[in-house]
Amino acid sequence: MRVSELSRSSGVPVATIKYYLRAGLLHRGETTSPNQARYDDSHLSRLRLVRALVEVGGLSIAVVKDVLAAVDDPGTGVHEMLGRTLHAVTGPAVDGGPGPDGDAERADADLATITEYTGWALSESAPALAGARSVLARMHALGHGPDAGTLRLWADAANRAAEADLQAVARAGSREEVAETALVGTVLGDALLAALRRIAQEDRSRRQFRSDG
Amino acid sequence: MRVSELSRSSGVPVATIKYYLRAGLLHRGETTSPNQARYDDSHLSRLRLVRALVEVGGLSIAVVKDVLAAVDDPGTGVHEMLGRTLHAVTGPAVDGGPGPDGDAERADADLATITEYTGWALSESAPALAGARSVLARMHALGHGPDAGTLRLWADAANRAAEADLQAVARAGSREEVAETALVGTVLGDALLAALRRIAQEDRSRRQFRSDG
Repeated sequence: MRVSELSRSSGVPVATIKYYLRAGLLHRGETTSPNQARYDDSHLSRLRLVRALVEVGGLSIAVVKDVLAAVDDPGTGVHEMLGRTLHAVTGPAVDGGPGPDGDAERADADLATITEYTGWALSESAPALAGARSVLARMHALGHGPDAGTLRLWADAANRAAEADLQAVARAGSREEVAETALVGTVLGDALLAALRRIAQEDRSRRQFRSDG
Repeated sequence: MRVSELSRSSGVPVATIKYYLRAGLLHRGETTSPNQARYDDSHLSRLRLVRALVEVGGLSIAVVKDVLAAVDDPGTGVHEMLGRTLHAVTGPAVDGGPGPDGDAERADADLATITEYTGWALSESAPALAGARSVLARMHALGHGPDAGTLRLWADAANRAAEADLQAVARAGSREEVAETALVGTVLGDALLAALRRIAQEDRSRRQFRSDG
C-alpha cells in the first residue's frame, strides 16, 4: 500500500508517518519510484504499536526506541519485554516529601502485609514498588494509613485487574501485539479502573448513607 | 494554641495558614491581643481537610470552598457530601477525540455489560460515567476493546477497591473526617492501585512467560 493508504488504515497522519520514518521508529517501505514506497502489514502493525507508545503511553521518541529494541530482539524473553514496556509507562513515584520518621517503615510493613497475603514476588528495582511505597508513606503522613483489611482488598483489586491484563496479553499474537495490548490495557486500564471505582463508590455510598440525607 | 503550634501540629506552614484564613477556608481564631489569636482542635481538623483537598486533590480555592460548603451544611446528606467531594477530584474524561462510528456505541454496550453484572445504579450526570465511557471508546478505537470476561474482572476490581473505601469512610467520625478520608483514600488510592496492579502484572507475567526467556 502507499503511504496515503497506510495513513488511512492506521489513523496516523501522513506527516506523522514521515516523522516516524525519519526518527527510525518505522522501517522504510520498498522503494517503487524516486518519490514513492510501498508499505505492507508489517508497517501497519508497527505503526499501531508506535502510536500506542506515543499517544497512549506519552513516551518520548528515545524511550519508544528502547521499547522497540526489546520488542525486536528475539533474545529478549516475553517477560522481560513486557517489563521494559510497562516500566517505561510507570511514572515517577508520588513524592510525598520527607514525612515524619516512621512513615517509610509503616509503608514497608504494609508491603510486607500485602506480599504475605498475595504471595507476590517483588522485584526490588521495579518502579511500581517505589511508587507503592511512596504512596503508602504519604497516606501514613496524612494520618490515613490503611489497615490490614484495606490492604487485602486493594491487593485483591490489583490481582483481578492484572488477571484481566494477562488474559488479554495471552490472546495477542506477535510480540508487537503483546507489547501493544499490555501497554494500552495498562495505561487506559488505570483510567478506566479509577472511573469504575468512583461509580462503585457512588453505588455503595447511596446504599450506605442515603437514608440519613 | 497559637498559630505556630497550629502549624507544627498540622504540618502546614504559618504563611499557608494565614493565606487560608484570608481566603476564608479556615475560620478565625479567638482574638487574644491585637496581633494574636488562639486556635483549637476545630482549626486543626479543618486544616487537615483543606490540606488534603489542596495538596492531595489538587483543587483550586474556589472548588475547595464549594466542597467545604457541602461539608458545613448539615442539610447536605453524607451521600451528597461525598458526591460533591469526589466529583471535584474526578478529572475530565480522557479525550479520545472523535473515534470511528461505533466506538461510542460499543462503550455503551460495555457499560451495560458491567451494570448487568454488578447491579450498580449509575447516575447519568456522574463525571466518572463520562470518564469510563470515553476510555472504553478510546480502547475500541485502538482495536483493544475489552471482552465481557475482562469487563467483569475490572468491575470486580473496582468493587473491591470501593468496598475498602467505604469501610474506611464508615470508621471516620465527623463529617470533616468523612470527606477527608474519602478524598485521601480515593486520590492516593488510585495511584496505589495502579502501582499494585503493575506489581501483580509482573508476578503473573513471570509465572506465565519466564520459561520462554
